[in-house]
Amino acid sequence: MNDVFETLESEVRAYPRSWPAEFAKSSGAIQTTTDGKEYLDFFSGAGALNYGHNNPVVIAPLIEYLQSGGVLHSLDMKTPAKRRFLETFERLILRPRGLDYKVMFPGPTGTNTVEAALKLARKVTGRHHILSFTNGFHGMTLGSLSVTGNSMKRRGAGVPLTNTSVIPYDEYLDSAMSDLVWLERALQDSGSGIDTPAAVIVETVQGEGGLRAARAEWLRRLEQLCHRYEILLIVDDVQAGCGRTGTFFSFEDAGIVPDIVCLSKSISGSGLPMALTLFKPEHDVWSPGEHNGTFRGNNPAFVTATAALEHYWADDEFQNELRDTIAALHSRLEEIAQSVEGSCVRGRGLLAGLLFEDAEHATRIAAEAYARGLLVETSGPSDEVVKIMPPLTISSAELERGLDILTEAVRQVVRSPELAADA
Amino acid sequence: MNDVFETLESEVRAYPRSWPAEFAKSSGAIQTTTDGKEYLDFFSGAGALNYGHNNPVVIAPLIEYLQSGGVLHSLDMKTPAKRRFLETFERLILRPRGLDYKVMFPGPTGTNTVEAALKLARKVTGRHHILSFTNGFHGMTLGSLSVTGNSMKRRGAGVPLTNTSVIPYDEYLDSAMSDLVWLERALQDSGSGIDTPAAVIVETVQGEGGLRAARAEWLRRLEQLCHRYEILLIVDDVQAGCGRTGTFFSFEDAGIVPDIVCLSKSISGSGLPMALTLFKPEHDVWSPGEHNGTFRGNNPAFVTATAALEHYWADDEFQNELRDTIAALHSRLEEIAQSVEGSCVRGRGLLAGLLFEDAEHATRIAAEAYARGLLVETSGPSDEVVKIMPPLTISSAELERGLDILTEAVRQVVRSPELAADA
Amino acid sequence: MNDVFETLESEVRAYPRSWPAEFAKSSGAIQTTTDGKEYLDFFSGAGALNYGHNNPVVIAPLIEYLQSGGVLHSLDMKTPAKRRFLETFERLILRPRGLDYKVMFPGPTGTNTVEAALKLARKVTGRHHILSFTNGFHGMTLGSLSVTGNSMKRRGAGVPLTNTSVIPYDEYLDSAMSDLVWLERALQDSGSGIDTPAAVIVETVQGEGGLRAARAEWLRRLEQLCHRYEILLIVDDVQAGCGRTGTFFSFEDAGIVPDIVCLSKSISGSGLPMALTLFKPEHDVWSPGEHNGTFRGNNPAFVTATAALEHYWADDEFQNELRDTIAALHSRLEEIAQSVEGSCVRGRGLLAGLLFEDAEHATRIAAEAYARGLLVETSGPSDEVVKIMPPLTISSAELERGLDILTEAVRQVVRSPELAADA
Amino acid sequence: MNDVFETLESEVRAYPRSWPAEFAKSSGAIQTTTDGKEYLDFFSGAGALNYGHNNPVVIAPLIEYLQSGGVLHSLDMKTPAKRRFLETFERLILRPRGLDYKVMFPGPTGTNTVEAALKLARKVTGRHHILSFTNGFHGMTLGSLSVTGNSMKRRGAGVPLTNTSVIPYDEYLDSAMSDLVWLERALQDSGSGIDTPAAVIVETVQGEGGLRAARAEWLRRLEQLCHRYEILLIVDDVQAGCGRTGTFFSFEDAGIVPDIVCLSKSISGSGLPMALTLFKPEHDVWSPGEHNGTFRGNNPAFVTATAALEHYWADDEFQNELRDTIAALHSRLEEIAQSVEGSCVRGRGLLAGLLFEDAEHATRIAAEAYARGLLVETSGPSDEVVKIMPPLTISSAELERGLDILTEAVRQVVRSPELAADA
Repeated sequence: MNDVFETLESEVRAYPRSWPAEFAKSSGAIQTTTDGKEYLDFFSGAGALNYGHNNPVVIAPLIEYLQSGGVLHSLDMKTPAKRRFLETFERLILRPRGLDYKVMFPGPTGTNTVEAALKLARKVTGRHHILSFTNGFHGMTLGSLSVTGNSMKRRGAGVPLTNTSVIPYDEYLDSAMSDLVWLERALQDSGSGIDTPAAVIVETVQGEGGLRAARAEWLRRLEQLCHRYEILLIVDDVQAGCGRTGTFFSFEDAGIVPDIVCLSKSISGSGLPMALTLFKPEHDVWSPGEHNGTFRGNNPAFVTATAALEHYWADDEFQNELRDTIAALHSRLEEIAQSVEGSCVRGRGLLAGLLFEDAEHATRIAAEAYARGLLVETSGPSDEVVKIMPPLTISSAELERGLDILTEAVRQVVRSPELAADA
Repeated sequence: MNDVFETLESEVRAYPRSWPAEFAKSSGAIQTTTDGKEYLDFFSGAGALNYGHNNPVVIAPLIEYLQSGGVLHSLDMKTPAKRRFLETFERLILRPRGLDYKVMFPGPTGTNTVEAALKLARKVTGRHHILSFTNGFHGMTLGSLSVTGNSMKRRGAGVPLTNTSVIPYDEYLDSAMSDLVWLERALQDSGSGIDTPAAVIVETVQGEGGLRAARAEWLRRLEQLCHRYEILLIVDDVQAGCGRTGTFFSFEDAGIVPDIVCLSKSISGSGLPMALTLFKPEHDVWSPGEHNGTFRGNNPAFVTATAALEHYWADDEFQNELRDTIAALHSRLEEIAQSVEGSCVRGRGLLAGLLFEDAEHATRIAAEAYARGLLVETSGPSDEVVKIMPPLTISSAELERGLDILTEAVRQVVRSPELAADA
Repeated sequence: MNDVFETLESEVRAYPRSWPAEFAKSSGAIQTTTDGKEYLDFFSGAGALNYGHNNPVVIAPLIEYLQSGGVLHSLDMKTPAKRRFLETFERLILRPRGLDYKVMFPGPTGTNTVEAALKLARKVTGRHHILSFTNGFHGMTLGSLSVTGNSMKRRGAGVPLTNTSVIPYDEYLDSAMSDLVWLERALQDSGSGIDTPAAVIVETVQGEGGLRAARAEWLRRLEQLCHRYEILLIVDDVQAGCGRTGTFFSFEDAGIVPDIVCLSKSISGSGLPMALTLFKPEHDVWSPGEHNGTFRGNNPAFVTATAALEHYWADDEFQNELRDTIAALHSRLEEIAQSVEGSCVRGRGLLAGLLFEDAEHATRIAAEAYARGLLVETSGPSDEVVKIMPPLTISSAELERGLDILTEAVRQVVRSPELAADA
Repeated sequence: MNDVFETLESEVRAYPRSWPAEFAKSSGAIQTTTDGKEYLDFFSGAGALNYGHNNPVVIAPLIEYLQSGGVLHSLDMKTPAKRRFLETFERLILRPRGLDYKVMFPGPTGTNTVEAALKLARKVTGRHHILSFTNGFHGMTLGSLSVTGNSMKRRGAGVPLTNTSVIPYDEYLDSAMSDLVWLERALQDSGSGIDTPAAVIVETVQGEGGLRAARAEWLRRLEQLCHRYEILLIVDDVQAGCGRTGTFFSFEDAGIVPDIVCLSKSISGSGLPMALTLFKPEHDVWSPGEHNGTFRGNNPAFVTATAALEHYWADDEFQNELRDTIAALHSRLEEIAQSVEGSCVRGRGLLAGLLFEDAEHATRIAAEAYARGLLVETSGPSDEVVKIMPPLTISSAELERGLDILTEAVRQVVRSPELAADA
């Protein structure tokens, strides 16, 4: 048929190839197609929908704001919506965690905040080199791409990616605690050929690169190395932040304080585009307007962001519930993993994955899940991991239902006898 | 006072330094501060508010969409809102203009579409070099920055900007028709040292770089040169597009057909973040997912974009009215320019500027205008141009009132006797 | 036949394709092949043999030095041969010309001195960008290649050449005095997109790029611009220096004093590898060993260099004779040029060229000359110039004989009626 | 005093700061100063004098050649001297070792051959990235510098060094056999962020970077990895080649066949500038003249090179004697190392080093040796290694005498009781 998506939209489109449905309505963890078919969502808008679809907590104030004639678009001008967001963010997020960060609005997407972080780190240190990690993902614009691992996406740059080097992520070389040895040795040796970097950029959980999660002690060791060599530590919390791993920032449990933090995706609480770059006050060396962007003042996003923070982060209740959801998820995932030879659980919190030895299994499992009404995607350089990322607000029943479907899909693909016995 | 904007927000903030007011409400061409003071808006959200603030044409369907539970955030998945946008854009914009473009959603900001355009041009041609123009502005991420002229913003990159060269824009060297001589000579000489570029990126009016407008014949000559040497022509219509110069695309009058077109800012019709990259079908060589971005499926923006296209671009009425507004503006600007020695009008359509010999005049005029309740900003490498960019939907009375304020501000600053006589 | 040059040597070899002879002996302006055929040399080892082949003035002391057991190879250690060279160079070259330069031995080739110059300019200024000129040629290593114009050679880099921009050389755009307008405008405009360069590198005569010679007033204007913007002026005198244009340095007549001067080719006086980098004392900011090179202490070359300076540059006699040789050459070249429609003389001193409208003519003329026993090569991006570069020491009779052959070759190729009439 | 070396020569000079003597004459392993003081040479012109100073084997034919009027300087033209060199090199070096290489003359210095190798590897593979090793040293021009480890020299570039990454050299991480794990893992993972390289460039012994010697099995493993991923293996044999490690090429014992080999330093046999780039015939994809250089036809060097090959490499005698010299050297070095806590022997063949825990010891030992008439330099990023590199032709008595001096110098500096007892 003459479908405008196929005739008019570029070949670059990706998700519709796995998920050809047209999604019309959505609510919480459920998406409904134009044809009325329902899907359970373990994808959460690639991490931008931590509080579920069309959560009334954020939609109601948004509608109210639009009806009131509030300013929608304001670049970096002052508005009451922006003021309320800043005050709330400071009161509910920064101050309780003892984080003394300046807040920058770098433009509303993840790659905007990463580019701003890289620029700032270079300006602060006067150095040009940035270190990133194997299988890291940070965005599609030229600067972010230069710290991203995926070779297909890197080739898309069309020019050599420069001023960056890659080092092995935690447990990348399959030997506990050894992965920072190379970095440490290279930094201490003036003849190593690795120019002292301006910054190291790291994800605590690699959302796109295969769901590896760095251990807390590894993150602390990395922070120590950065301090010793006066290198800035940038945590890209675009996907792992905003509660995804069980705490607001994904690095809280490790007890580190990055020099720069990148937030986006779920910071608006609603799926509306928004991003922040946070950094220590002593690094706030920007000249006015040195970095800018038309859409850095997306007031509807400020409104929903404020509502989400007020509702979910004013006390411990949400985090406590989240802990239970995480425990439930991981218990079931471990069960599945143990039933399949060579598979294991990856990730942390509700940013989890199932790694399969046979890389094709993950793709087929995701397809089987879709056929059964569950949205899960794959992750990793060879799409070898099934990525499980339900809304943080998912109900216990929905979670179990989704995991039942997932279990069936796994069983269907790998025909695991243990799972078959359970069924 | 303990103002969160000063204590918490980064020093990078820029507009609040000239315009310290907090803007609470807005409607059409009027913005109202928290204190109830009204400002007439000749700034239009840096070009993102071509249809004015909170235009009911777009706000009403947006509220309705939110109330209906429609999908908000969908990456590049299919949704009815996206379908309607694509169909409407093809029917009302592309087809009537005979433009056979594929449509890409590169992420919701101007710099996203520029980065996507540069990547695509390099992939299509297999070349790495891009030519841009003096005083061009294309964005703040590393790729876009490398084709941007402003030295302060370039230094912000913290690394040398590579794989690009700059050539003089139309009339940059103050001698009619000569400015492409250098390009032509360099391209034809295999020993010139200018590597054959993948693409040339150009704004038909330089919104940030001082409001120079390229002549139609210069644009045609540029297109011819590109064709002769098989170089892609990219028009960055982020600021000049969506009706700003009097036609939907700013290049329509020149009669050229760029290989790639970048749109953002006013394409959503509402100030919500959205961007498109358009290109000829033969250049649609992307692999699926080779460029992506979380917020490329901002459905609220699709809804308002569709509403704006339906309302303003379904027939000629809006364009005809716009022609009158443009004529009225330029007539008054010429008057002002003639009254001030050494000043002149720049720009085209409602993307206009007043250049002053004494660069400080422009900044002081903008400050005087602000004091009198009019928002105009400056443009150009030395902020030597007062930039006049009212909503396309501004009423005749508002336009005249704004121009009266502007005239007073100019008179105040340059104490022009002719203007004084008028008063 | 099984010729080791074809079977063993790489396809990169170039001259043997035009000049297949094997040259066994040489003396002054004459080269003799293994087969006993004599060639008159208007090529001078690409400018490395300004005093002719095997000039006894330099060969005798060299043999003596070798017989005496003097140190041959010394890196940058002190030797009497190096001391004598430095003292002689200061006494006969620098001091009489009022040039207060420090002398660096950067390694023995042209590209070594250019790379050293670029590094020093960047270190002195803290800037990264270098400007070079259309059709410039500076060498084959990565830094030198990045300021070289020829596209075939540039592609050989295999990576994008960065941190450089090209600007038009004198009269490149065919309009007197206008060629620095672009540079001037770009430097004064902070939004031009041309980053303020560390240095401009220029040849006063473009030996490889087509024998254009810059006018003295253009060079002075260039020097003024460099001074005004605190940009270092590098003159690459590798080919045009050492007397080739009639004075020791090619920039003496223009009355400029470059910040850095690159010398190589004929500085050894014998064809032995040697190079110097000269710079103003205030720019001598090198750390010890920051640039090095094994063969920077080639003592046999110091011995022959000293002998050549003593013999030819101790008084004015050589320069006076040279003036006559230059006049004789140019008079005959003008005659030839006037006899061929669309041809003209290029170059300065004994670094001259004949440009032909039909680029193939030059190649064919060089081939005809070779067939008649004269070595001349072509130059320019399309090999459109016959390059005439006899030894500075050539006798009047040899010069005339060579020009007679050249005239015949031209006549043969273009069948010019005037030349035919003369014959 | 008014010494021209101090007043006129640039501050970049390095060796004269440690060795202030002026060296006038030299013969074999002995250098004599202007004042008549003799020094025993364990430095060998940084590896360019493998056959000692002024070896009559090479000097006699050189003088004869100069007296005969043979061509001195010929770019890449054919000469009998070049023919004889090529034939001899093929007959005595390539053919007996079963090496089917094409020979390129890239210009006469080490950095010329490295730059040519990098360019060729990029052209052959169409890739841009090159991998080099920690503490590698390959030259001072921009391309070679980008694969060199030393941070002081890298900073000298004045621009970021791009298109290269560094990986750990053998035993750099102090754990046997593990150092290629990182490379292997990165190459096999398409998401590692290490772009598949065009080539890996390696020294089998790191002459400048601290005298580490790679184990044969590590080199073989490296070759296997290169083959598996179709990466070219470049061995930079500029310092370790020409017999320095006991065989003509330093990689012979490992049994590998690099795709490209860089030779310079001692290839001329005399200290005259000369370099070769060798590569497999299938990689000879150069266009004629794509890489060139004025001094690539240094015939005096061809003459001495041929004489050295004929004399030393026509049969096994020289290599057998060399084996004894190497054994004698290493036995004494081991003795010294065992007498000093924390010191050890590094290197291979006559490219050896003594590493001291206290980095200052090495510098002080070299100074003590100089004071006693022995030339040894230091090596390594912190100058922590005393580098011992006598001529390959050194007599047993001279070797022992030099080692006695070295032993005294060590004892003086570290006051080792065992050595004191021996004395």
